[in-house]
Amino acid sequence: MSKLLRNEISRLEKQMLVLSTLAEENLHKALKALQNRDITLAKEVIEGDAEVDRQEVELEEECLKILALHQPVAIDLRFIVAVLKINNDLERVADLAVNIADRVLTLADFQEVEIPFDVHEMAKHAWSMIHWSLDACVSMDAVLARKVLAADKEVDDMNRANFARIQDAIQQNVQLLPAYIAYLSVSRNLERVADHATNIAEDVIYMLEGGIIRHDKERMKGS
Amino acid sequence: MSKLLRNEISRLEKQMLVLSTLAEENLHKALKALQNRDITLAKEVIEGDAEVDRQEVELEEECLKILALHQPVAIDLRFIVAVLKINNDLERVADLAVNIADRVLTLADFQEVEIPFDVHEMAKHAWSMIHWSLDACVSMDAVLARKVLAADKEVDDMNRANFARIQDAIQQNVQLLPAYIAYLSVSRNLERVADHATNIAEDVIYMLEGGIIRHDKERMKGS
Repeated sequence: MSKLLRNEISRLEKQMLVLSTLAEENLHKALKALQNRDITLAKEVIEGDAEVDRQEVELEEECLKILALHQPVAIDLRFIVAVLKINNDLERVADLAVNIADRVLTLADFQEVEIPFDVHEMAKHAWSMIHWSLDACVSMDAVLARKVLAADKEVDDMNRANFARIQDAIQQNVQLLPAYIAYLSVSRNLERVADHATNIAEDVIYMLEGGIIRHDKERMKGS
Repeated sequence: MSKLLRNEISRLEKQMLVLSTLAEENLHKALKALQNRDITLAKEVIEGDAEVDRQEVELEEECLKILALHQPVAIDLRFIVAVLKINNDLERVADLAVNIADRVLTLADFQEVEIPFDVHEMAKHAWSMIHWSLDACVSMDAVLARKVLAADKEVDDMNRANFARIQDAIQQNVQLLPAYIAYLSVSRNLERVADHATNIAEDVIYMLEGGIIRHDKERMKGS
């Protein structure tokens, strides 16, 4: 690989990590807003999404520039294409933070109802998976990427347990339904953060090992 | 553009439409299974997803091959990158059909509860948006792509109306909660089909007009 292309790729990696940090901050802010019923902070997350979108566009432009100028092949080409897709996933993770912030605004219309599950624990798990998947991408580590696929089950289980707990709570207090429906949505959005980590990990494995491995997990699920 | 590249691109367009047809068939099957409480058909959708995954991998390989062999630039490069991303969206639309099929299996455990909204009407709207967005891609038509962005509001409104109606139904019959929660999920999954159409349309506009236009809709939402 030319030194110039090496430099461009390492710049791309940095840009990708900056975008992921921004998405992570927005998710944490959204959860803090949820915990404190903080409408101002929720609105900050919603407005802050424009910056995520700007950075996504910038990263994609960078990928296109490298493809056009350096015309990479083999693993370099696969890496750039993986970054293009990961870029998309990170932008959508930030959209999930916006969804949670929207729920904070919904919840503000109703009396306070205690959050019926540990959002921070669930977010911690989901975000570890994003971290691992990006590390796996940058260090080209298929073993680490597979760890992400295995970890997804845990977050799925948390989401299922939350659903059961919230359904029980609704049965006992149906007048609090709108708040509980909002909390169902928060749980599902956190579970979708983990799904995006899984997508990223699958893209990394695919980049490293080709088409055969991909969708293994989905096949396991379907069986 | 060389004649060879022109041929490759037109083959890519066909492959993309084949994938979208498969995703559409799976969605229709999932809704039919929902309407008829047909577990066998629901399982067919779940198992049929492996073929969608296979076609997604094939289409991505085709894109990589074209990038490596023809090293396209300018609009041709942007088109290939758009197809890479649309490919991803179509695979995820098929995943939403699987989600709905999963709900059919959940609903089978409970007594029959009439579907509280017109799933076919909502699916028809969402799928029209997918059609328009793909037509906009193939014919490079930014006006048609913008029509998709405008249409998304209608599906969002349907989803919101379904949520309100289902919440009322739960208040009246809390013992039917699990079935109603499954129907909430069906409505949300159909709304997400429309969201993917919006993503595709944004990619088309971005391909044609560059980074300035993208995320306009999200900015409008956030304001």
